[in-house]
Amino acid sequence: MSENVHPKSTSLAEFEKAANEKLPEFVRTYYSHPGEGGQTYRDNCRAFKRYRLVPRNLRDVYIRDTSVTVLGSKLNLPVAIAPTSIHKLGHPEAERATARGAASMNTAMVLSSWSHFSLEQVAAAAPRGVLWFYLLFYRDRGRMKRLLERAERAGYTAIVLTVDTPLFPFSLRRKPVVYPIQFSLPNIWLDDVAPGLPGSTEHDAYLKKIVKEAATWEDVKWVKNNTRLPIVLKGILSAEDARTAMDLGVSGIYVSNHGGREQDGVPATIDVLPDIVRAVGGEAEVYLDGGVRTGTDVLKALALGARCVFIGRPALWGLACNGAEGVQRVLQIMKDELSLAMARAGCAKISDIQPSLVVHQSYYGVPPMAKY
Amino acid sequence: MSENVHPKSTSLAEFEKAANEKLPEFVRTYYSHPGEGGQTYRDNCRAFKRYRLVPRNLRDVYIRDTSVTVLGSKLNLPVAIAPTSIHKLGHPEAERATARGAASMNTAMVLSSWSHFSLEQVAAAAPRGVLWFYLLFYRDRGRMKRLLERAERAGYTAIVLTVDTPLFPFSLRRKPVVYPIQFSLPNIWLDDVAPGLPGSTEHDAYLKKIVKEAATWEDVKWVKNNTRLPIVLKGILSAEDARTAMDLGVSGIYVSNHGGREQDGVPATIDVLPDIVRAVGGEAEVYLDGGVRTGTDVLKALALGARCVFIGRPALWGLACNGAEGVQRVLQIMKDELSLAMARAGCAKISDIQPSLVVHQSYYGVPPMAKY
Amino acid sequence: MSENVHPKSTSLAEFEKAANEKLPEFVRTYYSHPGEGGQTYRDNCRAFKRYRLVPRNLRDVYIRDTSVTVLGSKLNLPVAIAPTSIHKLGHPEAERATARGAASMNTAMVLSSWSHFSLEQVAAAAPRGVLWFYLLFYRDRGRMKRLLERAERAGYTAIVLTVDTPLFPFSLRRKPVVYPIQFSLPNIWLDDVAPGLPGSTEHDAYLKKIVKEAATWEDVKWVKNNTRLPIVLKGILSAEDARTAMDLGVSGIYVSNHGGREQDGVPATIDVLPDIVRAVGGEAEVYLDGGVRTGTDVLKALALGARCVFIGRPALWGLACNGAEGVQRVLQIMKDELSLAMARAGCAKISDIQPSLVVHQSYYGVPPMAKY
Amino acid sequence: MSENVHPKSTSLAEFEKAANEKLPEFVRTYYSHPGEGGQTYRDNCRAFKRYRLVPRNLRDVYIRDTSVTVLGSKLNLPVAIAPTSIHKLGHPEAERATARGAASMNTAMVLSSWSHFSLEQVAAAAPRGVLWFYLLFYRDRGRMKRLLERAERAGYTAIVLTVDTPLFPFSLRRKPVVYPIQFSLPNIWLDDVAPGLPGSTEHDAYLKKIVKEAATWEDVKWVKNNTRLPIVLKGILSAEDARTAMDLGVSGIYVSNHGGREQDGVPATIDVLPDIVRAVGGEAEVYLDGGVRTGTDVLKALALGARCVFIGRPALWGLACNGAEGVQRVLQIMKDELSLAMARAGCAKISDIQPSLVVHQSYYGVPPMAKY
Repeated sequence: MSENVHPKSTSLAEFEKAANEKLPEFVRTYYSHPGEGGQTYRDNCRAFKRYRLVPRNLRDVYIRDTSVTVLGSKLNLPVAIAPTSIHKLGHPEAERATARGAASMNTAMVLSSWSHFSLEQVAAAAPRGVLWFYLLFYRDRGRMKRLLERAERAGYTAIVLTVDTPLFPFSLRRKPVVYPIQFSLPNIWLDDVAPGLPGSTEHDAYLKKIVKEAATWEDVKWVKNNTRLPIVLKGILSAEDARTAMDLGVSGIYVSNHGGREQDGVPATIDVLPDIVRAVGGEAEVYLDGGVRTGTDVLKALALGARCVFIGRPALWGLACNGAEGVQRVLQIMKDELSLAMARAGCAKISDIQPSLVVHQSYYGVPPMAKY
Repeated sequence: MSENVHPKSTSLAEFEKAANEKLPEFVRTYYSHPGEGGQTYRDNCRAFKRYRLVPRNLRDVYIRDTSVTVLGSKLNLPVAIAPTSIHKLGHPEAERATARGAASMNTAMVLSSWSHFSLEQVAAAAPRGVLWFYLLFYRDRGRMKRLLERAERAGYTAIVLTVDTPLFPFSLRRKPVVYPIQFSLPNIWLDDVAPGLPGSTEHDAYLKKIVKEAATWEDVKWVKNNTRLPIVLKGILSAEDARTAMDLGVSGIYVSNHGGREQDGVPATIDVLPDIVRAVGGEAEVYLDGGVRTGTDVLKALALGARCVFIGRPALWGLACNGAEGVQRVLQIMKDELSLAMARAGCAKISDIQPSLVVHQSYYGVPPMAKY
Repeated sequence: MSENVHPKSTSLAEFEKAANEKLPEFVRTYYSHPGEGGQTYRDNCRAFKRYRLVPRNLRDVYIRDTSVTVLGSKLNLPVAIAPTSIHKLGHPEAERATARGAASMNTAMVLSSWSHFSLEQVAAAAPRGVLWFYLLFYRDRGRMKRLLERAERAGYTAIVLTVDTPLFPFSLRRKPVVYPIQFSLPNIWLDDVAPGLPGSTEHDAYLKKIVKEAATWEDVKWVKNNTRLPIVLKGILSAEDARTAMDLGVSGIYVSNHGGREQDGVPATIDVLPDIVRAVGGEAEVYLDGGVRTGTDVLKALALGARCVFIGRPALWGLACNGAEGVQRVLQIMKDELSLAMARAGCAKISDIQPSLVVHQSYYGVPPMAKY
Repeated sequence: MSENVHPKSTSLAEFEKAANEKLPEFVRTYYSHPGEGGQTYRDNCRAFKRYRLVPRNLRDVYIRDTSVTVLGSKLNLPVAIAPTSIHKLGHPEAERATARGAASMNTAMVLSSWSHFSLEQVAAAAPRGVLWFYLLFYRDRGRMKRLLERAERAGYTAIVLTVDTPLFPFSLRRKPVVYPIQFSLPNIWLDDVAPGLPGSTEHDAYLKKIVKEAATWEDVKWVKNNTRLPIVLKGILSAEDARTAMDLGVSGIYVSNHGGREQDGVPATIDVLPDIVRAVGGEAEVYLDGGVRTGTDVLKALALGARCVFIGRPALWGLACNGAEGVQRVLQIMKDELSLAMARAGCAKISDIQPSLVVHQSYYGVPPMAKY
C-alpha cells in the first residue's frame, strides 16, 4: 500500500476520525449532515446496541465463509456500498476509486446518478465489479429509457430507485451552494448543456425542470416495464409500502432512512427491519443501510432478516483517507469483524445466522445507559 | 420586510434564541416560567420525539394543501395562536400585532382576557382574522353576559374557557409584582376604575373580588346557555372530563397543561391526546398546545387525532423579534415545515394524515437517549 | 417569628440548602447518609416523578380541607414527622422543639427511642400534640413492658416498631464514633448507668447487650399482647410481610426503606406502595416515608393508597434552621403545597383523592429524562 | 498483617482503586480490557442494579450461615475465584498466592491453564483448598489426557472448559505483545521447549499449532469420557447450549461472558441467568461471573438461581494489593457484605434465599437513572 494509507485504522470509527481530520469543513459537514435535530441520525447507530447477541458455542467455526448471493451475484461479504453523491468531494478519482475498492473485495456498489463519472466510466474502472445504478425519476421518460439502456449495456445488474426523497435539496434550498471543487454530473446532464455550476440557482432551476419530484408507484411500474434488470426500492420504512412493492414485482426492498439526512424522527432502520422482513415474506430480498459500523452490527442485521447491508459514510471515509485502497480497507475491516463475530456466535457460514442469535434488550427489561 | 426582521431565523428554535437575547430578564423569565421542578414544561417538547414517523412513499405529493377547517372556519394551516397574556411585554403593538400576524397567514388566534387591547381593538386590527375569545369566569354573571355579547358583536367565533387554573397567580402570590412596563386590562376592567397597577396588592385584591376562581361545570353550562358561539374548554387532560364536556355540548376540547406553568408532574399533552381523542369519539374537535416547535410535531399531533394545534411561546418569540411580521414568519415556518413533513410522509392534504403514520417508540422497545 | 427564621425558604428544597449551609460537616453527612451506592436513597425522590397526575377540572375547590384521621386522631394535614435519632445534633431543644413544631400544625410525630429527651419530657413540651413512640426491642421484656406503660401513661397513642434494621449500626461499626456534641439517651438508658458516651466502644457493647437485634414476629406478638395501644410496623416492603402483620392484628403498615440508609437496592417506597395497599386490603392503615419533598408527592402517595405520609430529613432541616418554628414552617409549606395541588387536581377534601388521579409514566411509554 | 495491607479497603471498589494506583499501565489495561465498545463490560455491573431486593423482615437472622455445597465441596461462602491468566502480572507469588487466599477463606479457585505455576505447584501451595482446573482443548488428545490425569492426581475436583473463546487472542493479534515481566506457562508447555517468550510471534505460532481452537461438543464429550471429574462449561449464554450440555451429562453450567472481554454486545450475565436456570431445570449446578462487586450482587445472583458466583478482576485487585492476604480480604468483604445483606433480607442461611427476594425494576416500570 502507498504511504498515504492510515495503517492504524483498524476500525471504522478510526477511519471516521482520520477522514474528519483530513477533510475540509464543507465536506465534513456535507457528509455527516443530519436532518432537523439529528434524532434519527444518532438513533441509527445506537439502535444496533439495543439488540443483544446470544452466541451459540462449541460449533465448528474454525473456518468461516462470509460470502452471500445477492440478486444472483455472489459477494465475498454481505456488506456493499450504498449510493452517495459526488465522491469527488472526498477524492479526485471519485466513484471510479470507490468502485475499484468494492470490486477488489468482490462486493457490490450502487452508483448514484449524482456521480462525477458516467456510469460507463465507472463500469470501465471496475470491470469485474458488481454494480447497481441508482436512477432518478425524470419528467421525460425517454431520458429514463436511455439511461436504463445504458446501464444494461454497461453491465449494471440492478436498478435502484430512491423513494424517500419526494423533494430534493435543490428544490428546497433558498440560496445557491458553492462547492469547494468543480465537478460534472454526466449521468444527469446527458446531452444537455448544463446551465451553470451544480449548486447554482440556474442549475437548480434546470434540475427542477427535468427531474420528476414526488414520483409515484406508477413511475415504479413504468421502470419495471422498461428494463430487464431487477428493481430495488431504497428508502422503504413501512410494511404497507413493502407489500405494495411486492404486488408490483419489485426484487429488493432496501430499508433506509437516508442516513438520517431527510425526515428526522423516523425510526432507526434496524428497528423497522423485522416488520419489513415479515411483510415481504421471502418474496424479495431485504437490504438495510444506516448506522452499520461494525461486524457485530452486520451480524445483527442479518440475524434480523437482511440479506445484505450497505454502508454509505464509512465508504466515503475510506475513500477520503486513501482512495480505492481506503475503500478496500474499510470493507476488509467489516469482513474481518464479521468473521470474528460469526466465530464467536457459532456461525461458520451466512446461512447459520439465525433470528435466535439476537434478542432485543427489552426482553431483559434492560434500560438504556447514558454512555452507550 | 423591515430591517428589524431576523432573516436568519429559519426555525422556531432560532426565534427563541433571538427573542431571549432581545428581551429583558423579567420578560424572558415571565415567558418561559415553568411550574415547580419544570418536569412537565420540559416533557411537553421531549414527548414529541418519542413518537416516530413511519412515512409512506411514492404518493403524489408534489402539491400539498395544509388548510383545515376548524369550528367552521377555514385556516390555511392547522397551527393557531394560543391565548397568552400581556403581549405588550414583547411588543408595543401587543395583541393587535399578534392578531395581524395570524390574520396575514389566515389562521386563528385566541385573544386572552389578560390583553392590553380590548377585544374590539384587536378585532379592528385584524378585520379578516379568525378570532376566539378566552373569557374569564366572573362572580357577576352580568359581567360575563356583557363580555359574551361584546365578543359576538366584534366577530369572535368561539369562546374559550380555561379550566386548568382554579386558582390564579394573583390569588397565590405573596408579594406584589412590578411589571417593567405599564399596561391596561380593558377586557377585565370594563367600566371599573382599576385600583392600582396590575400586579399591585390592591389590584390583586380587586381581581380576587370580581373573578370567580374554582369555577365548575355549572359555570360552563351557564356560558353555553348564554352565547350562540361554540364553547372550547382549554386545559382538559382526563378522558373523564372530556366525556363530561361532551354531555354538556361543548364543541372543542383543547388539550393543554398550560405550557407546564401550572401543575407540574402532569403528562405531556401529546401523551394524553390519544386517550382524549378516543373519549371524545368524534363528537367535538380536539386541539392541543404544549411543546409544538416543528412541522414534524404538528404532523404527529394531527396523526394522533388533533384537528389543529396552538402555539403560545413561539408566537411571543416572533412578536418580540419583529411584531406582526415576526408572528407571521413563525407561522410561515410552521407551514413550510409541515408541508415538507407531509411530502416526506406521503400526505398531500391534511386528511391524508392518518394514525398509522405514527408509532410510539416503545413499539420498538426504544429506550431514551441522553441527547434527545 | 424570630430573626433566625429563613423567610426565603418557601420549599423544602430551600430548607435543605439552608440546613446544609448551617450544619457542621459531621451532622450534614449523618443526616443524608445513604447506604452502599445510594441507589435507593436517590430513587426514593425520583420515583415520585415517575407518577403523573391526571387532574380533574371544574370541581368546586375554592375551599380545601387537608385534614385526615390517622389511627383515630384528627390531623390538620396528612404529613407527620418520621422517627429520627438525636435531634440535638440539629438544635439544642432537640425532640422537644420538633414536637412543638408538629403540635403547632396539629399533626403527629413519632418519637424515636434514640432521643435526647425522655418520652415524658417530649410529651410535656407538646401537650396537645399527637405522639407515637418508636420502641426498640430489648432482650429484657420487663424493660419493654416498663416503656410501654410509660408511653401509655404519657399519652402516646401508638407504638411504632421498626422492622428493617435487624442489625443496628452499633452492631456493625468497627471503630467508635465521636459525636460533636454530648447527649443522653434517657429512653434507652432507663435506670442503667450508661457506660461511656454514645458512640464509644463501651456504649456500643452495652447496647449490644440490652437491645434484641434481629427481632421476630414473636416479638411483635408480645408487644401487641402487652399494650392497649395500636401497633404500627415501620419498614415493611413486601406484601408477604404485610399479610403476616394483618394476621397478627397490626393497626398500621408503615412502608419505609429507612430513607435509603439501610439496605441499598431495595425499591423506592412509592413503587411498592400499591402492592402493600392491595395486600392490606383495608384491614389496616398504610403510611409511607422516603423521598416526600413536595405537596404533589403527598397527593400522589395518597392517591396510591397511603393514609398519611411521614417526613424525616425535611423536619430535621427545619429544626436545624429554626427549631420548632422551622419544623412548623416545613409542615406549613407541605400543607400549602398539598392544598394547591388538590385544587389543581379537583380535590376539595382528602377523600376526593382517588387512584385515578395518578398514572405511572410507563402507561404513556414515557422513558426517563436525564434531568429529572 | 504486613504493612503492605490496605487497611482502608472495606469494599471491592476501594480495592479496585488501590490496585489501579499501584499497578503499571500495562497490567491495569490488561486486567480491565473490555471488548469492542465495552457495552457488555459495563453492563455486567450495571445489570445487578436493575434487580431490586424485596426484603422479608422479622425473621430470626441474628446468626447467619453463608456456607454452600458446590459440586460436593463445602465452601464457607458462595463466592469463588474465576479463572484468570498470568497472576504474576499482579504479584510474584502469582497463582500460589491466590490459591492460598481462597483456601484461607475455605472457598474454591479455578486455576487457569494460563498460569505461571504448574497445577501441582498451586495445589501444593494450598493443600486444603478446593481447586478446579481450567483445561484448554488441544489438537493432541494425548496431551489432554495427560493433563486430566495430572489434575486428578493433584487433587483438583472439577474440570472447567471455557467455551466462549473459539478464537484465542494469540490467534487474532497482528503484532507481538511484550509483557513487562517474564513468566512460564508450565500447564501448557508440558515437555515442550517453548519457542520464544509468551506474546512473541514464535510463541503465538506454537500455540496455534498445539491448541485446538473452535472446539466442538465432540471435544466436550471426549473430555467427559476421559476423566472421572465433573465437567463445568464456562461461557454459556444460551438456553439452547445449556440443554445440549445437560444431554451430555455436564455437571455445572457457568454463565459467563468472559468479563465482557470477548464478544461485545452480549447480555449481562445476571440478565441471562434466569433463562439458563430454567433450561437446566435442576439437572446441574449453575454458576455465574461478571460484574459481581458486592454482597448484595451475590444475594441477587443466588436468588435468581445461581449456586455460587465467581469473581475474576476483584481477586486480582486483592492479589495486586497484598498477595494472598489481599485475596483473603476481598473474599472476607464479600462474605461480610453477603451476611449483612442476608440479615436485612431475612435469610439466615443460603437456602433461605428465594426467587421472591428479587424483582426486576421493570416490574415497577422503573426507568434508569443517569447516575446509577
